[in-house]
Amino acid sequence: MLRRALFQASITIVLIMFITFEGLDFSGKSTQAQLLVEKLAKLPIARGEALQKAHLIREPGGTHISERIREILLDKKHLEMSDAAELFLFSASRAQLVTEIILPALTRGDIVVCDRFDDSTTVYQGYGRGLDLDAIRNINKLATDGIAPDLTFLVDIPIEEIRRRKGLAGLSFDRMEVSGHDFYARVRNGYLALAAAEPDRWYRVDGMASVEEVARRIWSVVEQKLTIHKSSA
Amino acid sequence: MLRRALFQASITIVLIMFITFEGLDFSGKSTQAQLLVEKLAKLPIARGEALQKAHLIREPGGTHISERIREILLDKKHLEMSDAAELFLFSASRAQLVTEIILPALTRGDIVVCDRFDDSTTVYQGYGRGLDLDAIRNINKLATDGIAPDLTFLVDIPIEEIRRRKGLAGLSFDRMEVSGHDFYARVRNGYLALAAAEPDRWYRVDGMASVEEVARRIWSVVEQKLTIHKSSA
Repeated sequence: MLRRALFQASITIVLIMFITFEGLDFSGKSTQAQLLVEKLAKLPIARGEALQKAHLIREPGGTHISERIREILLDKKHLEMSDAAELFLFSASRAQLVTEIILPALTRGDIVVCDRFDDSTTVYQGYGRGLDLDAIRNINKLATDGIAPDLTFLVDIPIEEIRRRKGLAGLSFDRMEVSGHDFYARVRNGYLALAAAEPDRWYRVDGMASVEEVARRIWSVVEQKLTIHKSSA
Repeated sequence: MLRRALFQASITIVLIMFITFEGLDFSGKSTQAQLLVEKLAKLPIARGEALQKAHLIREPGGTHISERIREILLDKKHLEMSDAAELFLFSASRAQLVTEIILPALTRGDIVVCDRFDDSTTVYQGYGRGLDLDAIRNINKLATDGIAPDLTFLVDIPIEEIRRRKGLAGLSFDRMEVSGHDFYARVRNGYLALAAAEPDRWYRVDGMASVEEVARRIWSVVEQKLTIHKSSA
């Protein structure tokens, strides 16, 4: 949504500013978000005086208040949490993150890479839990202050793969993850519906490929969006 | 909203089920809510086998999850909290309270007396902070699951009285209370507007009267709503 022309020496680089990663738990999206930020940090434009920082942000969390909200959301003991309470807690965490971190960063001209954003709420609380999609749209609008990602990667894996990867990692379930197969099937269908509705913003990548291969595909998309102009300015 | 006919011996008592207290901080509404519940507990209908309990609930809070949210909201260190984050945190706390406590209690036929409910959000976050009133209306609807109080007492005091009472109590400001005089003036105007719009639900009582006098006026309103029928059932 926000774009910025960055002048350095005689080269103008116009960068996508706000990139989000979406996908099921254990899709590998967090790893990919991390790899992308590392790669962006090595770009020439990220050096020198006119530093364009790349921020990696994880949702829910990213601010002191949002991290406290995250603790409530991921607490395994909170199985009694209502669907609406969950929706509002994610939205509170996001609203704080947008005000305190994302908007100031984008205004400075930095790049923001976000591991989950409001599409997660649409698919998890809307498609997954069955809360009204119109209500969620309005809540998202307020929580994001109207900002939308320029580019969103859907790291897509089959539902069965969640359980396999969780087993490999030797992890126990958290509160979000005890919802089961049908829940995740609805979430995944939600992601595919959102991606189909906004093909210019969404890029689906096959999360079953190797980490390196997924990263390569993601980078090839980002690279196309980097517009490099030589000028005599 | 929910009413219930309670049969005991040959007397039917139809009670208002859901009563809320609203007002500025230090208006004395919490004391009045407490006094009302104590009085309701002494009614004949609250004894015997067909016990109709009267619950006193404080917002934000009232459940394990809601109390954790309350800690975040009232933390003096959180001066950076965005208006939208605040709105969503109150709504999350309320949604949990409605699902876990209020709806089950009303369904059992109990009386619920709530110290603040969604009108607080409308006036504090809407009139006070200036968030969009339509957006708040929709959020309140989701957070309350559509339930509305049968009766709401506005314990009304002038703005100046807040500071005086706070001084008397020797208390320091919490995060909500550093917003100042103009904020509270907007909140109070909001309350008066809501009360004017729904005169059948709202009763304004002068919070400058003595505790006993305020309690007496409140009880006289509640008493009128208690419909006692003798029958030969």
